[in-house]
Amino acid sequence: MTSVATLLAPVEEDLKTLNHNLRQLIGARHPILGAAAEHLFQVGGKQLRPAVVLLIARATMTDGEITARHRRLAEITEMIHTASLVHDDVLDESETRRGIPTVHSSFNNRIAVLAGDFLFAQSSWYLANLDNLEVVKLLSKVIMDLAEGEIQQGLSRFDSELTFEAYLEKSYCKTASLLANSGKAAGILSGIARDRADQLFEYGRHLGLAFQIVDDILDFTESSETLGKPAASDLRSGHLTAPALYALEEQPALETLIAREFAEENDLERALAIVHETRGIERSRDLARHHAEIARQNLAHLEPSESKDALDGLVDYVLRRCN
Amino acid sequence: MTSVATLLAPVEEDLKTLNHNLRQLIGARHPILGAAAEHLFQVGGKQLRPAVVLLIARATMTDGEITARHRRLAEITEMIHTASLVHDDVLDESETRRGIPTVHSSFNNRIAVLAGDFLFAQSSWYLANLDNLEVVKLLSKVIMDLAEGEIQQGLSRFDSELTFEAYLEKSYCKTASLLANSGKAAGILSGIARDRADQLFEYGRHLGLAFQIVDDILDFTESSETLGKPAASDLRSGHLTAPALYALEEQPALETLIAREFAEENDLERALAIVHETRGIERSRDLARHHAEIARQNLAHLEPSESKDALDGLVDYVLRRCN
Repeated sequence: MTSVATLLAPVEEDLKTLNHNLRQLIGARHPILGAAAEHLFQVGGKQLRPAVVLLIARATMTDGEITARHRRLAEITEMIHTASLVHDDVLDESETRRGIPTVHSSFNNRIAVLAGDFLFAQSSWYLANLDNLEVVKLLSKVIMDLAEGEIQQGLSRFDSELTFEAYLEKSYCKTASLLANSGKAAGILSGIARDRADQLFEYGRHLGLAFQIVDDILDFTESSETLGKPAASDLRSGHLTAPALYALEEQPALETLIAREFAEENDLERALAIVHETRGIERSRDLARHHAEIARQNLAHLEPSESKDALDGLVDYVLRRCN
Repeated sequence: MTSVATLLAPVEEDLKTLNHNLRQLIGARHPILGAAAEHLFQVGGKQLRPAVVLLIARATMTDGEITARHRRLAEITEMIHTASLVHDDVLDESETRRGIPTVHSSFNNRIAVLAGDFLFAQSSWYLANLDNLEVVKLLSKVIMDLAEGEIQQGLSRFDSELTFEAYLEKSYCKTASLLANSGKAAGILSGIARDRADQLFEYGRHLGLAFQIVDDILDFTESSETLGKPAASDLRSGHLTAPALYALEEQPALETLIAREFAEENDLERALAIVHETRGIERSRDLARHHAEIARQNLAHLEPSESKDALDGLVDYVLRRCN
């Protein structure tokens, strides 16, 4: 088993530089946001998104050396992701993320809205200054998709009519769009051909979908301690994900519990039991594997390199999380 | 006295189209935001910002006919402005704006954050699709300035050391940047020369500063009914504007009241009395006139037209509000 740290070795130094730059950017200029920034980047986790950008950058440059614009793109990617997390936590009224109190609960809504707006604004500004209209379009689309995904999620709570297609579309908007578009943008900054850039888009899209499906499985299979947030919080909040949607196909009884929003005693426990009794989780794992496989196929055009191997290894890493 | 409606006659039809498009954009696609959108555009007021864009567009096109990209720019301008208002109301916890309850008080913080994010996201996307990198940069700078202005405002509450320079910088960020950059962008979309585009920037900048200074005067001179929000709310919240800053120069006693955040009985009343006893309001009017005059001078390069007259008339209109 390869650890994430080992996997990301080709861009370990790049990620350190990125972290340093991001802290400078927010903390140094604005003390009011400084504490929130420290907090944010502490929670940051594995920085999968900028890592993918940096790995694609290295895998697509013929000399393996990345440019300042690639680095800036990776920073923009992390800023957009962080901004969306901060606002999502306000929207969802989440108290913790990865076991650490959220910005809006540690500070207040005011600082959380402000910090998110500042990060979105800064990313738009950096983006425009990459001086590449195609890259601007790709990343603007991500910002649109994130807002769209959040709206879709709000609209579909406790809606047992939610189609699988709509679930995947929402997962694309909220998770995969950023990986797909920023990965493609990294290739474009390296000057690769259009069809190869499109394959990088597909890699990011399917890796992102696999990642989200695995996350949705873990919400059912892991404890609160491991998750760093209350277990089964998706279902509890009415967010129907792959395991619940498959379970609904097998056990229509689940529909009644969802429709009344688990209002009666033991409703949630009964619903969870139904999901575990059906093939919901097993079929979700198959779905994640399916997307992981397509992600992997879209790396075939890359020349052999340490960074290509890491991109391939990330696919396994995502799947391993739920096995 | 010319009414605003008469002044804006050259773009009256354009503004109707803009309103229709903006309502379509939000309401039709997202019922959850539909009610909030209706609400927003009801409050919208005189739509000074898109009107300036449309007037500049008409004044700079040789045939007086504007393009689809000019219209889109005007929509983007109004979307950015509206998004910032919605988030500002969350940040300031304002209950009303122009006498109408704010989105976050009529609905909730969740919808307000979501509606603002959606509008910012949509404007980034439209912006990228104008296919003009210079215009993208100008408007991204506006989004940065709005966030920066909001942060500066938060940092400087009840700070009697606030310099006049910092006050004008904050006013530029929060109000003038949008008029300056979108006005210049309208000229660029018309294909005018760089030095003329820069003059349009200066027109917008000084018109915006005059507008903000007048707004700051009105907060001291008008009743709650006329303002549609509590009177003297700037000073009450610790936002020191031109009249208070001039008064501080003449009457250092005001400093003590501000430093203790009007904590003792009648502190706010005493502070207001001091502002009215000094030449604070008179000097603020002079300052607004000064910026209005510079705005006017920067229209000299435009060929005579109905739209140019309207841009000139807007300068008078802004000043008339506080006379």
